[in-house]
Amino acid sequence: MIKVGIIGVNGYTGGELLRLLAKHPEVIIHALASRSQAGRYGWEIFPSLHGTGLGAEKILTIGDPRLYQCDLVFLAVPHGVAAELAPSFLDAGVKVIDLGADFRFKDPALYEAWYKIPHPTPDLLAEAVYGLPELNRDAIPGARIVGNPGCYPTGILLGVAPLLVNDLLAANLIIADAKSGVSGAGRSPKLDLHFPEVAGDFRAYGLPAHRHIPEIEAFAEQLGEKPVKVSFTPHLLPIPRGIFITLHLTGKAGLTTEMLTQIYQDFYAAEPMVTVLPATTLPRLKAVLGSNRCHLGVRMDDRTGQIIVLSVLDNLVKGAAGQGIQNMNLLCGFAETTGLTELGVWP
Amino acid sequence: MIKVGIIGVNGYTGGELLRLLAKHPEVIIHALASRSQAGRYGWEIFPSLHGTGLGAEKILTIGDPRLYQCDLVFLAVPHGVAAELAPSFLDAGVKVIDLGADFRFKDPALYEAWYKIPHPTPDLLAEAVYGLPELNRDAIPGARIVGNPGCYPTGILLGVAPLLVNDLLAANLIIADAKSGVSGAGRSPKLDLHFPEVAGDFRAYGLPAHRHIPEIEAFAEQLGEKPVKVSFTPHLLPIPRGIFITLHLTGKAGLTTEMLTQIYQDFYAAEPMVTVLPATTLPRLKAVLGSNRCHLGVRMDDRTGQIIVLSVLDNLVKGAAGQGIQNMNLLCGFAETTGLTELGVWP
Amino acid sequence: MIKVGIIGVNGYTGGELLRLLAKHPEVIIHALASRSQAGRYGWEIFPSLHGTGLGAEKILTIGDPRLYQCDLVFLAVPHGVAAELAPSFLDAGVKVIDLGADFRFKDPALYEAWYKIPHPTPDLLAEAVYGLPELNRDAIPGARIVGNPGCYPTGILLGVAPLLVNDLLAANLIIADAKSGVSGAGRSPKLDLHFPEVAGDFRAYGLPAHRHIPEIEAFAEQLGEKPVKVSFTPHLLPIPRGIFITLHLTGKAGLTTEMLTQIYQDFYAAEPMVTVLPATTLPRLKAVLGSNRCHLGVRMDDRTGQIIVLSVLDNLVKGAAGQGIQNMNLLCGFAETTGLTELGVWP
Amino acid sequence: MIKVGIIGVNGYTGGELLRLLAKHPEVIIHALASRSQAGRYGWEIFPSLHGTGLGAEKILTIGDPRLYQCDLVFLAVPHGVAAELAPSFLDAGVKVIDLGADFRFKDPALYEAWYKIPHPTPDLLAEAVYGLPELNRDAIPGARIVGNPGCYPTGILLGVAPLLVNDLLAANLIIADAKSGVSGAGRSPKLDLHFPEVAGDFRAYGLPAHRHIPEIEAFAEQLGEKPVKVSFTPHLLPIPRGIFITLHLTGKAGLTTEMLTQIYQDFYAAEPMVTVLPATTLPRLKAVLGSNRCHLGVRMDDRTGQIIVLSVLDNLVKGAAGQGIQNMNLLCGFAETTGLTELGVWP
Repeated sequence: MIKVGIIGVNGYTGGELLRLLAKHPEVIIHALASRSQAGRYGWEIFPSLHGTGLGAEKILTIGDPRLYQCDLVFLAVPHGVAAELAPSFLDAGVKVIDLGADFRFKDPALYEAWYKIPHPTPDLLAEAVYGLPELNRDAIPGARIVGNPGCYPTGILLGVAPLLVNDLLAANLIIADAKSGVSGAGRSPKLDLHFPEVAGDFRAYGLPAHRHIPEIEAFAEQLGEKPVKVSFTPHLLPIPRGIFITLHLTGKAGLTTEMLTQIYQDFYAAEPMVTVLPATTLPRLKAVLGSNRCHLGVRMDDRTGQIIVLSVLDNLVKGAAGQGIQNMNLLCGFAETTGLTELGVWP
Repeated sequence: MIKVGIIGVNGYTGGELLRLLAKHPEVIIHALASRSQAGRYGWEIFPSLHGTGLGAEKILTIGDPRLYQCDLVFLAVPHGVAAELAPSFLDAGVKVIDLGADFRFKDPALYEAWYKIPHPTPDLLAEAVYGLPELNRDAIPGARIVGNPGCYPTGILLGVAPLLVNDLLAANLIIADAKSGVSGAGRSPKLDLHFPEVAGDFRAYGLPAHRHIPEIEAFAEQLGEKPVKVSFTPHLLPIPRGIFITLHLTGKAGLTTEMLTQIYQDFYAAEPMVTVLPATTLPRLKAVLGSNRCHLGVRMDDRTGQIIVLSVLDNLVKGAAGQGIQNMNLLCGFAETTGLTELGVWP
Repeated sequence: MIKVGIIGVNGYTGGELLRLLAKHPEVIIHALASRSQAGRYGWEIFPSLHGTGLGAEKILTIGDPRLYQCDLVFLAVPHGVAAELAPSFLDAGVKVIDLGADFRFKDPALYEAWYKIPHPTPDLLAEAVYGLPELNRDAIPGARIVGNPGCYPTGILLGVAPLLVNDLLAANLIIADAKSGVSGAGRSPKLDLHFPEVAGDFRAYGLPAHRHIPEIEAFAEQLGEKPVKVSFTPHLLPIPRGIFITLHLTGKAGLTTEMLTQIYQDFYAAEPMVTVLPATTLPRLKAVLGSNRCHLGVRMDDRTGQIIVLSVLDNLVKGAAGQGIQNMNLLCGFAETTGLTELGVWP
Repeated sequence: MIKVGIIGVNGYTGGELLRLLAKHPEVIIHALASRSQAGRYGWEIFPSLHGTGLGAEKILTIGDPRLYQCDLVFLAVPHGVAAELAPSFLDAGVKVIDLGADFRFKDPALYEAWYKIPHPTPDLLAEAVYGLPELNRDAIPGARIVGNPGCYPTGILLGVAPLLVNDLLAANLIIADAKSGVSGAGRSPKLDLHFPEVAGDFRAYGLPAHRHIPEIEAFAEQLGEKPVKVSFTPHLLPIPRGIFITLHLTGKAGLTTEMLTQIYQDFYAAEPMVTVLPATTLPRLKAVLGSNRCHLGVRMDDRTGQIIVLSVLDNLVKGAAGQGIQNMNLLCGFAETTGLTELGVWP
């Protein structure tokens, strides 16, 4: 059993960590902290906690000593804040999994270019490991600090990896047309996210440059061992959860849907959390809600030479909290799927 | 043609006034004003205005002289504010239709009891007319100032009026179990109204005392000429628009669904905006969205002696802006349904 | 470990049984059967099963011998069908939990009156136990056959029980204004349930007489030891899951919200699955989605003497599959909450 | 005033024609017909018609003589059926607007290749005019028969036309990632479109070959006067109405967002129904719901050389019924926007 702390528990990722860790057989939830909600009870923040016994203790401030008694902490705080908090935990021998953007790629100049602040701890950036187990598993177990991938990069990289690794693309451009549920935009009320403004709507946002791009390109180039550009167009779905990514790629000559499906199924054959659907069916976002799974589908369009890859996951689970726990399991030597075997909820 | 102004145009009611008045053949939209949005353009506030030519002039402050050139102004502002603005318009010979709560019932003590502030202009309260045309039509044409009914009271009073007027209730208690779309809660972002918190949810709120109660009881007692109490339970529906009211009432002996349906159809036979459905079908909220209509259905439950009345309307149209325009038509001598003949949008 | 079979696995209740039993530590899912889907694979019916290893065997016909090797079967089939299937399982020594309507109340005449067919096995009706653990726990462990309560009756009876048992009502009428997500209407496509017809809609249905009434009245009279009538008005919420029940009741004099909240909290103090919220907060449907929990809130309206009780649950879990498993745990001597400790999913 | 008939009134397009034509000052709705609903009343099919006076006469069979008294008929029937009905109307001197797929492109071989049946009336195919007014206006007024564009092709062609006509693309591939509300899939209940299966879901469908492709390519090649291929990926949005199209295109060197926005605004400067948003804002699907408008936005991504075009419209209005009426206005010499000036409904 290990003692775990969650910093930034009031956000959706923090709440999801709480939901999933509550059933993890190897974990004691030792401390919950939040900058804005310190002093309140968990059930005041998440109505789903009523009567569960969880959230019965007051939420701590993020400087509380109790946090330093943990074996591992999850940081679910804004970029910049995580990088400032991390060193004190590492110095205290507490492993760190950052669910934010501060430790996802190596180049501090790139970080500053996209996040408009100098990286507070460039040395840690160099040490941090990118926590995408299916594509970077070997690097994780020994780490002190893990940068948990963004929700969009997780879906895009899992979707394109078999093509990059097998060098099946005829062009170095990845067009990612991505659609996310609103929880991906966080829990702070805004007019743009006010229920009547979102219900029945669909929209693109943040064009043409989204901060997830450098993370995707950096790791995609590592996978393909050549330069690659990502044209990333995020959209907002009028649903609370889930991500659906449609990749438009130019394939090498001679590929077919059946060949590509086989290549994808071979690539992920040993993966418990990633499933490549048969060529007879297409992924549906709803099928993975609440679970740590990613469903993939791939199609070849002979008329145009385009490969279309469909990738779905729950942005709060495989795209955040669930993947964070998957990384925790690897860091702590637990079976990788421990506490992560829930099925998606249907309907 | 008359010149009309809208004060508080940035809210949903203000926007709906704009949408409907834009097509009104007797109206020139002369001035738009807002406390928070002065200086911006309408299309910045309502994306639906792009390319329509509406909202092309900058929004005015609520003190702008141009407002006093209008023949009539709609006040879509918080309670208290309307009562303070009204006198200056009346003094300038501008008719006033208040879509808020300041002029809906006569008793200033009751106002203070429920709204926690003394009524700013009790004399105007005495003068103001309750603008529910189907039940108070004769009082409206000559008025200078109209208190436009609340969305819930409109649905409840239209639903119960035939029973009160015909003295068909065996008990003086009206149980109103009401459900409203989220636009009824306004356009200010709040965590409770943040999309991910509302989507898939349903909840009651403001129990057991909602500020619409004194308005409902005051007018219901006038209709039935006897005391009546309202047990009002509002709920929030995870949809942007529409109200559905279920009334639970104790009927006098001997009534049947067929008799009640006939009584309701007779009561509203001459009304263009209120339709009593046949006993073979039940009202659906979606059927009136975007329209100024109210659909009613009534059922007798022999097993329990309960009368169940179902009343649906669009909270922003028949429950606010549309009814305001219906009142304007009466005040200005236009045909009552002018500009209000749109069908509901299906699906 | 026991061997369990699910008959009618293709419906939403069958699918939910599969989702929950898959994680139950004492259960082996031995056989899945369906009248309409025999020969297909589970993952063809529930996209959430892809890659989980579940549903890997072909679905059996409902007469398949393999079903009779089970220790217990869940029947998720239409009324009438269950009563005809049950005897053969009991004769084979297989315990039966019926999730349909065939074994929920004792009076065969009442069954025929509401379901328009004579009860196929009135003797079994007499033997069957009503499986509402919080209110009928002692009767369950020794049973051979359990009638699992309907989703509406579960929410209504849990909501009203403290008042009936403590004799706190001044009138013998229970007004239940109930709202259910669409999964409660089943998985068969119909125009009324076609997505574009339901999205943005809200409606009442089946007035004034719904088949859940005799079940509610029969058990409510048993609880209160006096006659009681239920005025039941079901509505359809435009969400996939969840039930919200608003009870309108006439309370005895002198009751307050605080007193009632205390009475409810005392009544359910020992219950792991039922939580009475503090008087400072109101239940929200979304808080229990995916979980086996019921949240209750109670309010006294001094102005009207009305008690308003709010009861929420997930119609497919505490309202069907989860409660069925709770009954299975009692029948088989497992800890009652085994496999049922999941939190609600938020947001 | 002209007499108009609607054949196939029971579908969503038929209903939308009824909603819009009811307010058209130059139209008398002379006859409504349906194969499946003949003999019923309109209000039985569309609850929004209660009390409007519309749908008061029984729906006719599609062979009814009354239809041949019309000046113009709208065909809202499946492909193949329209081509068989059209000649008899033309012979009777009745103009025809087909909202289906039978008269959208010239090549009967292409029709047979995609629709798997020989075209019933190839000669009419040669005569029919493609009814996309903004791009084909001059051809429409003199026509006897108009092929009303599909909802997807309308959005895609309006979105790409300025680039094709001005020869600004560096590659002849149009990647169209399209998202449609469920009404686009029709009104026939199916499990895939059953409310609980769609709510909270998002999915792609019909990959990689959708029947709208030949229509898009044929007209795009005409616009650009060179061959072009369309990679079309349709998705289903969990909303009842609206289409959002994201075009991914390779632009010629040197283009900027500002240049492109100006080019688009110039291209559509005279168009009342198509609005190019300023570079400071992005289109939102919800902004056009209920209206006949198309909103466009365009962005240049310098990092990748990709042009991203966003195109939104209401699939039932500008994508079907509204555009059909726009064509009717042109055919009959009415002002093009007559009866089509409604604003979008917000929220």
